[in-house]
Amino acid sequence: MFSFEVIAESTESRARAGVIQTAHGAVETPIFMPVGTLGSVKSISPEELVETGVQIILGNTYHLYLRPGCEVISKFEGLHGFMNWRKPILTDSGGFQVFSLAKLAKISPEGVTFQSHVDGSKHLLSPEKVIDIQTCLGTDIMMCLDQCIEFPATREQIRAALEITTQWAQRCRQAWQTAQNGGIALFGIVQGGMFTDLRRRSAEELVQIDFSGYAVGGLSVGEPVEVMMEMADFTLPILPQARPRYIMGVGTPENLIELVTLGADMFDCVLPTRNARNGQMFTQNGTINISNSRYKDDSDPLDSGCRCYTCRNYSRAYLRHLYLARELLAYRLNTIHNIHYFISFIRRMRAAIMADTFESFRKDFYRQLDN
Amino acid sequence: MFSFEVIAESTESRARAGVIQTAHGAVETPIFMPVGTLGSVKSISPEELVETGVQIILGNTYHLYLRPGCEVISKFEGLHGFMNWRKPILTDSGGFQVFSLAKLAKISPEGVTFQSHVDGSKHLLSPEKVIDIQTCLGTDIMMCLDQCIEFPATREQIRAALEITTQWAQRCRQAWQTAQNGGIALFGIVQGGMFTDLRRRSAEELVQIDFSGYAVGGLSVGEPVEVMMEMADFTLPILPQARPRYIMGVGTPENLIELVTLGADMFDCVLPTRNARNGQMFTQNGTINISNSRYKDDSDPLDSGCRCYTCRNYSRAYLRHLYLARELLAYRLNTIHNIHYFISFIRRMRAAIMADTFESFRKDFYRQLDN
Repeated sequence: MFSFEVIAESTESRARAGVIQTAHGAVETPIFMPVGTLGSVKSISPEELVETGVQIILGNTYHLYLRPGCEVISKFEGLHGFMNWRKPILTDSGGFQVFSLAKLAKISPEGVTFQSHVDGSKHLLSPEKVIDIQTCLGTDIMMCLDQCIEFPATREQIRAALEITTQWAQRCRQAWQTAQNGGIALFGIVQGGMFTDLRRRSAEELVQIDFSGYAVGGLSVGEPVEVMMEMADFTLPILPQARPRYIMGVGTPENLIELVTLGADMFDCVLPTRNARNGQMFTQNGTINISNSRYKDDSDPLDSGCRCYTCRNYSRAYLRHLYLARELLAYRLNTIHNIHYFISFIRRMRAAIMADTFESFRKDFYRQLDN
Repeated sequence: MFSFEVIAESTESRARAGVIQTAHGAVETPIFMPVGTLGSVKSISPEELVETGVQIILGNTYHLYLRPGCEVISKFEGLHGFMNWRKPILTDSGGFQVFSLAKLAKISPEGVTFQSHVDGSKHLLSPEKVIDIQTCLGTDIMMCLDQCIEFPATREQIRAALEITTQWAQRCRQAWQTAQNGGIALFGIVQGGMFTDLRRRSAEELVQIDFSGYAVGGLSVGEPVEVMMEMADFTLPILPQARPRYIMGVGTPENLIELVTLGADMFDCVLPTRNARNGQMFTQNGTINISNSRYKDDSDPLDSGCRCYTCRNYSRAYLRHLYLARELLAYRLNTIHNIHYFISFIRRMRAAIMADTFESFRKDFYRQLDN
């Protein structure tokens, strides 16, 4: 059921446009995936996701495994039925949260043991188990268990994490094949920190195992943006041209446009949703903080060119008032706008690639941002 | 512009159906008004209010006066434009919040001085000022400044509050007339605590002044439900049959059906919205707490007969999960259901009055509740 096809390539950069097919429909790349941590993209409904143009969302395996748990979600034929979302879902493996959020994460031969950040209960995630859980969640694209290391880290730490990541990737690939989840894709995750030779080794080992797609993990973990771009620039060309290439946990609009230039196809990030809840709004002229007193009686919409529900119906003054009064509607209206911004931005990138005008689109983007 | 017409009366009780006309459209009585304290019915959008059948909402003058203030709202031609709500609005006078929420409320010859609960700033609300503020808010129905006394209180406290309430009502009536707000209605508020003779005196004094409609205030302030019903039963017939009669701050579905039986036309209460945010859901078989573990993997909707957005799309298990995880979507989905419950309940009451089958409707309601 899963397939990927490149349908246009820029003649001026590695930017490309494609189509992913899944059991729950098509996804046009490049694509941005909003994060639905606990079976809900915080504050907004499935209908609002569709209205803002969202084609695929990300679910967090770690969180959903702890709450409400697979035994509940399986009664609803997976996450789609449970949360009433009928389009594609990508789930992460839970590895990132185990190492960043859970307590006492410890690698054993079997996998990684940890204590829940919710209630302190003890759990084991193994490569086989993350395939089981993601199968139960009924995802469209599942990810291998990996070990993501923060920046900075020693070469030795990075090398050890890389080796575990490759071992786990092999076991995930085996479990995935055994489960014969026909339609569900499995992506490998490249690690290797900020060392190009380790990035190359990780990528080549994963390509050898053969996955439906490849993610570049371990970026946006505290390194300077130049280093992130250098690593992406180095790693992306090593990955097969015929498979989707996914940069995990990134990023700002500027990050996205640069990484698309380098040939990336997929992105996820909490930035539009989390920042919306903190009052930071994305506009064609850069970010604004809606709590700023200059918007006190401003009757303009957030972003004059925007056609989202929020901008069509509400003023900056009203949004500022709701935000300062901590009204629940504030989080929703802000989130709708920010997601719409990211989605329409990446759609316009895709249209420019299709028309082979991506480089001029990129220049226009920066020019507008400086206005 | 404002008018009221009784279009049907029960032959078995004082229950009646009517139509209020305002500059922003018609309101079919009996009616329940959800509370939109700060320019938003907490967690839901104007479109969702319309979809659940809401015809009129209540705005809190005290809160809106403090945040964002009249100078902001007046730039949007009132609250309707500011919050994007195009149907009728009733605003209270702020008196209730001044005496219950603000600090150091003190009655002076001019009105009542208090300190804001938000920032401690000092303010004066006078009868003239509450008319000014409500005019600026662009409301459809404004309320007189009154002094509401909690239960229990001495006869002397109640008498003093009643006398101030009548004096303020006269000044409100004068200010309203001077302002010549053609289309905007002004309602008087009956006080008098739990003393029938004081209730009679208050009602008669207000009727003498002559208002567009009359509210019974000072109920649901801690008294036993039997006492509340006794006071309503005594007070409602004293009020003019040709004017709408509004019971403020009430109440449960059981309260509503009893008060409609006694001839009340209008209600407002935070019960459906506040309880939704605390996980207490109204159903045809009584209230349930959505956090109950019995709903852990329950795939049924909240209320099997309900046609609200929440019940059409989500299971109890999902709602329980969202609520326990404190997901923002929980508050919205719960609020939509509870408001829909109250609105469809009062609509069905109205239909029964029109068909003159109200008493059998009432018996069926209690029978179902006990199921």
